[in-house]
Amino acid sequence: MEKLSAKWERLCAASRIVRFVDMNLRGIAQVMFQDNPLSGALFLAAIGWGSYAAGAPRVAIAGVLAVVVATLTAQWLRVEQAPLHSGLYGYNGVLVGLALATFLGPGALMWVYVVLGAAVSVVVMLGTANAVKPWGSALTFPFVLTTWLLLLATYGFSGLAGAALPAGNVVTAFQPYEASPLKLIDLAQGVLQSISQVFLKGSGIAALLLLAGLAVNSLAAAAFALAGAVVAVMTAHLFGAESELIAGGLLGFSPVLTAIALGTVFYQPSLRVAAYTALATVFTVIAQAALNVALTPFAIPALTAPFVLVTWLFLLPRQCFEPTKTVPADSVRPYPT
Amino acid sequence: MEKLSAKWERLCAASRIVRFVDMNLRGIAQVMFQDNPLSGALFLAAIGWGSYAAGAPRVAIAGVLAVVVATLTAQWLRVEQAPLHSGLYGYNGVLVGLALATFLGPGALMWVYVVLGAAVSVVVMLGTANAVKPWGSALTFPFVLTTWLLLLATYGFSGLAGAALPAGNVVTAFQPYEASPLKLIDLAQGVLQSISQVFLKGSGIAALLLLAGLAVNSLAAAAFALAGAVVAVMTAHLFGAESELIAGGLLGFSPVLTAIALGTVFYQPSLRVAAYTALATVFTVIAQAALNVALTPFAIPALTAPFVLVTWLFLLPRQCFEPTKTVPADSVRPYPT
Amino acid sequence: MEKLSAKWERLCAASRIVRFVDMNLRGIAQVMFQDNPLSGALFLAAIGWGSYAAGAPRVAIAGVLAVVVATLTAQWLRVEQAPLHSGLYGYNGVLVGLALATFLGPGALMWVYVVLGAAVSVVVMLGTANAVKPWGSALTFPFVLTTWLLLLATYGFSGLAGAALPAGNVVTAFQPYEASPLKLIDLAQGVLQSISQVFLKGSGIAALLLLAGLAVNSLAAAAFALAGAVVAVMTAHLFGAESELIAGGLLGFSPVLTAIALGTVFYQPSLRVAAYTALATVFTVIAQAALNVALTPFAIPALTAPFVLVTWLFLLPRQCFEPTKTVPADSVRPYPT
Repeated sequence: MEKLSAKWERLCAASRIVRFVDMNLRGIAQVMFQDNPLSGALFLAAIGWGSYAAGAPRVAIAGVLAVVVATLTAQWLRVEQAPLHSGLYGYNGVLVGLALATFLGPGALMWVYVVLGAAVSVVVMLGTANAVKPWGSALTFPFVLTTWLLLLATYGFSGLAGAALPAGNVVTAFQPYEASPLKLIDLAQGVLQSISQVFLKGSGIAALLLLAGLAVNSLAAAAFALAGAVVAVMTAHLFGAESELIAGGLLGFSPVLTAIALGTVFYQPSLRVAAYTALATVFTVIAQAALNVALTPFAIPALTAPFVLVTWLFLLPRQCFEPTKTVPADSVRPYPT
Repeated sequence: MEKLSAKWERLCAASRIVRFVDMNLRGIAQVMFQDNPLSGALFLAAIGWGSYAAGAPRVAIAGVLAVVVATLTAQWLRVEQAPLHSGLYGYNGVLVGLALATFLGPGALMWVYVVLGAAVSVVVMLGTANAVKPWGSALTFPFVLTTWLLLLATYGFSGLAGAALPAGNVVTAFQPYEASPLKLIDLAQGVLQSISQVFLKGSGIAALLLLAGLAVNSLAAAAFALAGAVVAVMTAHLFGAESELIAGGLLGFSPVLTAIALGTVFYQPSLRVAAYTALATVFTVIAQAALNVALTPFAIPALTAPFVLVTWLFLLPRQCFEPTKTVPADSVRPYPT
Repeated sequence: MEKLSAKWERLCAASRIVRFVDMNLRGIAQVMFQDNPLSGALFLAAIGWGSYAAGAPRVAIAGVLAVVVATLTAQWLRVEQAPLHSGLYGYNGVLVGLALATFLGPGALMWVYVVLGAAVSVVVMLGTANAVKPWGSALTFPFVLTTWLLLLATYGFSGLAGAALPAGNVVTAFQPYEASPLKLIDLAQGVLQSISQVFLKGSGIAALLLLAGLAVNSLAAAAFALAGAVVAVMTAHLFGAESELIAGGLLGFSPVLTAIALGTVFYQPSLRVAAYTALATVFTVIAQAALNVALTPFAIPALTAPFVLVTWLFLLPRQCFEPTKTVPADSVRPYPT
């Protein structure tokens, strides 16, 4: 593996095209905090498979277009080289592309939207990274903010149709459903799809590809992703969330990201950190349910906002834990600082 | 009084259990900015009486459980000793406990919620204190944010019932009621209940206990609390707010906290500061009415968010006033740290 | 012109009354970032004409009252002299006055509201300027926040009637209208009213007075205002926004401000900056449509929030562009300070 990696690095140094491909693969990998082109390739396979299986290959195409536009925008804005090469200006773009193509109907203006959203996501990334530098990193906030604004605006534009957007409504008490205890198979599906929904896919195979992509770079990240998904599904089940949401992974993708971020990226691993991460993961399920409700009147999805909110809340009290030592001292990096 | 206080301090130093009780009493007292166990005991009596009179003793139990969980969480997170002993990691917890037990129906999951909310409130407290350290303090923001998320989430969980939550609705013009000038007795009730609603109680006796608890530690705080309540009731009446809301103290509890905070805690008292505090108190009534409306589509209560918002706005321009000199040199602020 | 300007400056130095008039005229001019009393006088003429033409002279009176109250409040708060004399504590006030008188019905309490809102806008201005000092300026955020709270609160006050406020509703898909391509005359009207709506006026003559007011101080500002309006109208038309909103300038006033701010105030002009400004201007149209939708459940107008949001997002990554050099060495920021 290491030999392969060294060979790839030589190729990147030799060819601007290979370097560009490398940056964009890392951009895809950074959605789950991995700085590794092989992880990115496996994640891209997961996106491709998930889009193909759902009969919407344009979603994968939009994701690829968006990460390329984001990387080009970052180059035009003359950002620092190190984070650019690590894919830190691409991961929000790929998510913007996937989300817009998932929630909006096809059409020329949808592609204008993807290009515009990917470009703006880089500006928001630079700004957010600056704003939170003293204590954290931008996470997927640029993706969330940019996509929310673009989706909301479609309700005022006749040229764009929100094909898969939820209908707006006021908040009313949840109707308790008949007690039908989830079967183990549903829970297992919920765990896998909690992982694949990080890339807006409901697919077990995509989830396995994502886990493989995590494992090739960090076994700890793969373990925390899986553990986070299990904790999320169990928590949601305990509080009596809707079975379909649980089995579809729709309450679990934000907790998965919280678990990876707090458990393996930002803090020095330890038993205390694991307990802290577990508390944060449980609370991310609460935040996901809360934001699903809070966004009901606006008829837009919560995206990964619950992950961003809770991870920021649990990163701010940095004095309580050792930050990771792996961060190079000379970098003012937004993410992962 | 001072002899008693010295004796209690010796007891605290001698016994870890007494110290723990002291911390939690101060935690309750810090809801109204007092660092005094006797204030806390009187506030606890107000909570107990209010809960008993409303036929819901579980509310008081939830408050006590929550402050204990919050203090234990803070110890586990190895926070600094001075603010811990002053109760600064407990006051948000007690409010979370009171609010959850007030707005949610009883049941096992409600108690899970109280423990979870109290623990998370400490994390949010640490983070908020860090975020606002340059210019202010966390106030009750951790309570508001944590409780909002927990309450919103109940609409997605069949295991938790929002017994006393408002029904969701879109914003529609307020229906002007028949002009029925409030009687003096209603205004007097509004003033008292504005004070007791700080602890989510509608009880004149609780209000008197709270005023006593303030007075034993700071006559100025008691005076500003009362003055703030009078100003709030008069302002709400002038603008034609609903009589029931005024008489129930539901437009006055946030202004009471604003008046104590700006008038006695953060700025050096003076005539200019009193005028500034009066402006802030009046505007807190506006903010309370505004947030009541803004939260209508979400079907959750405003809690003390208007107090937090307006007090932060009036704390940010610090250059205009002398900050209090009573702050110990080694701490940036008396309250949060 | 310069001779006139020098003479006026001598008059200001000699008379406190003339100085006070000067401050307030500059306050009106600062709504569009101009530090020039003649610009302010021309803007005031635009306000006066627009109010008179709309049959509501009280709107202009409220604007003037508000800027005077704001300036007096700033003096009472003992703010720094340089920004005070430049009108930086007045521009939010004038907008608060215009907005309240535009959206609320007449009556004694409306005038109380104008005075209260103008005074609070200064506190919010001081606080916002402090909060964003490291990377930007307060823009019209104090106006937006203060006015939103005051307007929202009217739904809870029977003493104030929201005469011209939108009706609350949940978000529902926009009904595509019959394709009726806008005529050139409509587009021209949209461009002009995009400029006049910065002061909440739908009037071509007011727009020309505003352009004149910009041109006497900065030809670049007038050019960017016009270009921003053209870009906004074209973008809104491309995405299929409602014709009436486009022709009424209601999707263009925020983009106009974004174009002036980024293109002429904060960055050193260049081709790259112009492209960056164009991207921001286009995205402000998206943000305007998005906020119009997002505020539907609250039944309040977006005001200039889209301008504030997008300009802040595009100011935060300052490392990518040269800031303007024209900033006086003794001030941290060109605009608020």
